[in-house]
Amino acid sequence: MKIPAMKRRDFLKVGGGVVAGAAVGITGTNVGNNLGAGGELAAVASSRGLTGAEARAALTSVVPPGKYDPFFMFASGGHSGQISIIGIPSMRLLKIIPVFSRDSFSGYGFGTDVDGVIPRGSDPTKSNLLSWGDTHHPALSETEGRYDGRWLYVNDRANGRIGMVDLADYKTKQIYDIPNIGSAHGGVFVTPDSEYAHVSSITPRPITDNGYAPLESYADLYRGFSSWCAIDQTTGHLVPEKSFQIELPPYNQDLADMGKLASAGYGFLNSFNAELSVGMSHKNPPIEIGAAKNKYDYLHVIDWKKAEKVVAAGKIIMRNGIRVIPLQVAISEGILHFIPEPKNPHGVEVSPDGNYIVIAGKLDPAVTVYSITMIKKAIEDKNFEGTDRYGVPIIPITAVTAAHVELGAGPLHTQYDGKGNAYTSLFIDSAIIKWTLGPDAGVTEKPFTVLEKIPVHYNIGHLAIPGGDTVAPVGTYMVALNKWSLDQVQKLGPQHPVNLELFDINHTPPRVLSSLPLGGSEPHYAQIISVDRLNPLTVYPPGTSPETMAKSEFATASGQERIVRADGFVDVYATVMRSHFTPEQIPVTVGEKLRIHLTNIETAENATHTFAVPNHNLQATLDPGETVSVEFTADRVGSFAFYCAQFCSAMHMEMYGWLLVAPAGA
Amino acid sequence: MKIPAMKRRDFLKVGGGVVAGAAVGITGTNVGNNLGAGGELAAVASSRGLTGAEARAALTSVVPPGKYDPFFMFASGGHSGQISIIGIPSMRLLKIIPVFSRDSFSGYGFGTDVDGVIPRGSDPTKSNLLSWGDTHHPALSETEGRYDGRWLYVNDRANGRIGMVDLADYKTKQIYDIPNIGSAHGGVFVTPDSEYAHVSSITPRPITDNGYAPLESYADLYRGFSSWCAIDQTTGHLVPEKSFQIELPPYNQDLADMGKLASAGYGFLNSFNAELSVGMSHKNPPIEIGAAKNKYDYLHVIDWKKAEKVVAAGKIIMRNGIRVIPLQVAISEGILHFIPEPKNPHGVEVSPDGNYIVIAGKLDPAVTVYSITMIKKAIEDKNFEGTDRYGVPIIPITAVTAAHVELGAGPLHTQYDGKGNAYTSLFIDSAIIKWTLGPDAGVTEKPFTVLEKIPVHYNIGHLAIPGGDTVAPVGTYMVALNKWSLDQVQKLGPQHPVNLELFDINHTPPRVLSSLPLGGSEPHYAQIISVDRLNPLTVYPPGTSPETMAKSEFATASGQERIVRADGFVDVYATVMRSHFTPEQIPVTVGEKLRIHLTNIETAENATHTFAVPNHNLQATLDPGETVSVEFTADRVGSFAFYCAQFCSAMHMEMYGWLLVAPAGA
Repeated sequence: MKIPAMKRRDFLKVGGGVVAGAAVGITGTNVGNNLGAGGELAAVASSRGLTGAEARAALTSVVPPGKYDPFFMFASGGHSGQISIIGIPSMRLLKIIPVFSRDSFSGYGFGTDVDGVIPRGSDPTKSNLLSWGDTHHPALSETEGRYDGRWLYVNDRANGRIGMVDLADYKTKQIYDIPNIGSAHGGVFVTPDSEYAHVSSITPRPITDNGYAPLESYADLYRGFSSWCAIDQTTGHLVPEKSFQIELPPYNQDLADMGKLASAGYGFLNSFNAELSVGMSHKNPPIEIGAAKNKYDYLHVIDWKKAEKVVAAGKIIMRNGIRVIPLQVAISEGILHFIPEPKNPHGVEVSPDGNYIVIAGKLDPAVTVYSITMIKKAIEDKNFEGTDRYGVPIIPITAVTAAHVELGAGPLHTQYDGKGNAYTSLFIDSAIIKWTLGPDAGVTEKPFTVLEKIPVHYNIGHLAIPGGDTVAPVGTYMVALNKWSLDQVQKLGPQHPVNLELFDINHTPPRVLSSLPLGGSEPHYAQIISVDRLNPLTVYPPGTSPETMAKSEFATASGQERIVRADGFVDVYATVMRSHFTPEQIPVTVGEKLRIHLTNIETAENATHTFAVPNHNLQATLDPGETVSVEFTADRVGSFAFYCAQFCSAMHMEMYGWLLVAPAGA
Repeated sequence: MKIPAMKRRDFLKVGGGVVAGAAVGITGTNVGNNLGAGGELAAVASSRGLTGAEARAALTSVVPPGKYDPFFMFASGGHSGQISIIGIPSMRLLKIIPVFSRDSFSGYGFGTDVDGVIPRGSDPTKSNLLSWGDTHHPALSETEGRYDGRWLYVNDRANGRIGMVDLADYKTKQIYDIPNIGSAHGGVFVTPDSEYAHVSSITPRPITDNGYAPLESYADLYRGFSSWCAIDQTTGHLVPEKSFQIELPPYNQDLADMGKLASAGYGFLNSFNAELSVGMSHKNPPIEIGAAKNKYDYLHVIDWKKAEKVVAAGKIIMRNGIRVIPLQVAISEGILHFIPEPKNPHGVEVSPDGNYIVIAGKLDPAVTVYSITMIKKAIEDKNFEGTDRYGVPIIPITAVTAAHVELGAGPLHTQYDGKGNAYTSLFIDSAIIKWTLGPDAGVTEKPFTVLEKIPVHYNIGHLAIPGGDTVAPVGTYMVALNKWSLDQVQKLGPQHPVNLELFDINHTPPRVLSSLPLGGSEPHYAQIISVDRLNPLTVYPPGTSPETMAKSEFATASGQERIVRADGFVDVYATVMRSHFTPEQIPVTVGEKLRIHLTNIETAENATHTFAVPNHNLQATLDPGETVSVEFTADRVGSFAFYCAQFCSAMHMEMYGWLLVAPAGA
């Protein structure tokens, strides 16, 4: 009954060796020498009933154990309120970053009810303490129009907020509850050097003091807002006092994009419901009908460089703590222009060179391509065909249209491959159309021509190509973010997962590589970044508070643990390491206010612990080096065995202690 | 600029056709005829730097788009408080079922603050309203010792609860906050015909009225409890009045398993801390030291069939709403016996035939195998070597040990392949040992012999084989649930994902197929079931309340929508369909109490909608046919654009309406 002598694989060495620089799919130097003629592979494929195409796709996308994905996809999580990181091409869900929703796994929002990122991100004048959000459009920070791997921003479509994730430690550091908007959809998109994170409202809100107005006064009292949230270049935080908004008519401002290179300094916002439909009543049709009556809605062209100057000149009002350029000022100062766009458009995406602004028609089976050169000229020439009802000048569509490319039913979103091609998703047709841009993007042969129709599985929303919305796309992979999965996975109860599909777009025609029916999250938009742009830390300097990224004043070293009663508080200075808490006994009397300051004094990578308190909503995660303070009132008599909820060592089960809340006078 | 004529792939037909009965990895009839001699596959593999083994593994585990996984793994989610479903062998995360934690994606816990599964699952006498949990051990319901696909139970290790998931719709229907225990770790394991879901406390709790006692009285006043929660055979719900508990000494009862076949009628609970360590103080060492002093702890052998009779005979006390067999009654009635087990064991797992009870030593580099035949004989013969300090009779270890098999450092958990082999995880050695069972399991040649040492990547916890804890394991695949990932994925900030590894155990020696560094959840235990055992619904009968699985009294049909004011409430009877709510305008006055009853009147599969209310913690998900009621007070003046957060149709963006909360007297 002895263990046979065998050599244990030295993973650290083998893994590390293979891994170094091995961006699978990019380099391929480690040629297998035991593949033979491939006959064995064909036999394996055959035995599993794989077609040749399926076998080839598997080999083209697999990332074997110990090797790495060259790309990470940062995908929004819809009304799960989070960000997901998915490896490309392996399509493995590697991490979930909670942004707006409380998350007991990370302890996010479970440290205390009165402190932390979430409460500070819920403006008490606007809403109750919010513990959910609806993330749609992540925006990686950029330098010179390329992802720089510093920060990530994402909108809360539900509640008019932006969350900021620090890519130094992949944690949410700030939620900014933006004044004057109740929803946020047009963004987040950052300016090419991350001066601003932009978001605009999808539904307007009354500009009355109490945020209420009857729908009869919709045209007069409801307004949209384009929000330019200034980014601190050191911390990545959004700075309210340096931010500004532009008041907009109460159309539904939909998606947005930032100009770049040729169109730098401009922002573009789609809209729908120029009809001002307010919904079904005895005399009105539902919004889906009422808002789809007119032939055109309005592309909003915003000159944000000019807006900055207007703000600097003080031509603003203060509204709920933010500087606002009133609509009439925006008009008179030439900040805001409209261009008609075919009905109820959805995506607006600027080509890598910045020359083309591509509008997906949604109810128009085409994309309309505007030229920034022609837009600038029209504005300069004051070539307007009147104004809308609020006085915003309208540029004639004919004056700025470079092309109107018929694609098929339900165009939604466009990405670019950096080789002169655009890829546009068709929601109704369940397909992606590959088509060419025009001369301003370097395409002279067959400009604005449909090249391929790539079928996808059901109702695609967004699509993502590495860097596909930057000045430098990497046209290698493309992910289709499909909204319905139906028969792509067995029944999993009434709610099917969404279904992501990975395509090889190096190949002509593009070939499907794999699909990922993904449970628990609904990605809307996603951005794909080369992993080599990212360089997070893995162990904090001792006693770091992730919120400030500085040493916590409550950091505690080994041997300094203590319980101090002062100023009406019981301050517990505790350390945490494999496999015990110090102190292990915390005796208090019911009603006492506790502040427990925990420092994980581990220095080993991955040595994360948690502090979980049964029968309380208290669960703090402590990464190596991290200090966290949790504050609560011991309002319940009892003996509670707090413990580490993270499987941390062989003695993990023994890693617990006692919070002893004695009755008064005991 | 016309779309080239091209034939759109007819996915429904192709997908459906390929899929019918195509359990990939089980059958393989669809032999690829364009694989040629496989030379192309070798070339693809070579171009990506894959070794032959890597290429073979990829082809052995891939599940191509449109084909299905033959197995689903139901994995716990640790302190995320949820259950994950992962396809095997594709290792794709297909679904997340929230159990104990609020989840805005599904709307779970966001419908109202005063109703629903979560509040009813928080015993107000024991804890505050809990919105998190720590899921460890899922238990699929069984019939005759096999998974039957009806229900799933999982423990909340943190708070002493069990959650019940209905596999008819994959939703949590009940949380049972079990009296008298503050934690829950020994389970959930169900009896072979799902009569009971068992869980025991991991840390004892004072049996004082207020749940508090100083640690000086630990031996006298703290107690563990073995909880036998009766399962209603129609609904799957746990029925408190038919359940019972057995009082136990204040050892830390760790993992548990149910006897089956030869050992049917018995339950087995490991324990540690027979030393009664209460943690570091001026005179005591930390628990990790204090609880590891003795050479032996005690395996608890419980005769639950006999316990049922004792309960029926009324030899119980009522304690906080549950029938309890006091410790002394359990002793005198012969319900509870102890067997010494090497120090601080972790897993106890009964072999498929029920003959062997395998204890993983954790601090002992071996598994100890007890024979149920020998245990029964020792009990019958009253072959005891005295009692513990509480009077529990102790069976001599020598009288019942069939084997003591040396495996290596840190044995934790064991699974079976149905072919006479056991697989035991070694946490410290980062390996899995394949070894043989003995004669009672049909192994006559080389019994209790180590066959293979299978290296894994860092600190494995549990492992899972399809049916690996039932009477009928399917020894095809094995998943290692590794706690640390380190270099298996690039840096993702200080917290690394866990890392699941898939092995082909049809092959000798077992071969690694793939790895899944999994973010956002920490699986502890997992069970793998053949998908053909599952048959969930996809569309509810019209107006179904998932909580009751019956027609809701508030179900509303098209044309019957209305707003009714009565009894101090505003009752809104609403319908939801692509792409509008009816009514679309809900005008109320601040302070009014609303009950909004929403019925999704869709009948199409996958046509899920949500009802999301900005600036409120209200987000309800409505699957086709479902009726949900949300209740809240309109305590905030404003115009709020509620909307569907689920991308449901081309007109999804237009699917919203207005909740208009006017000020009083407006």
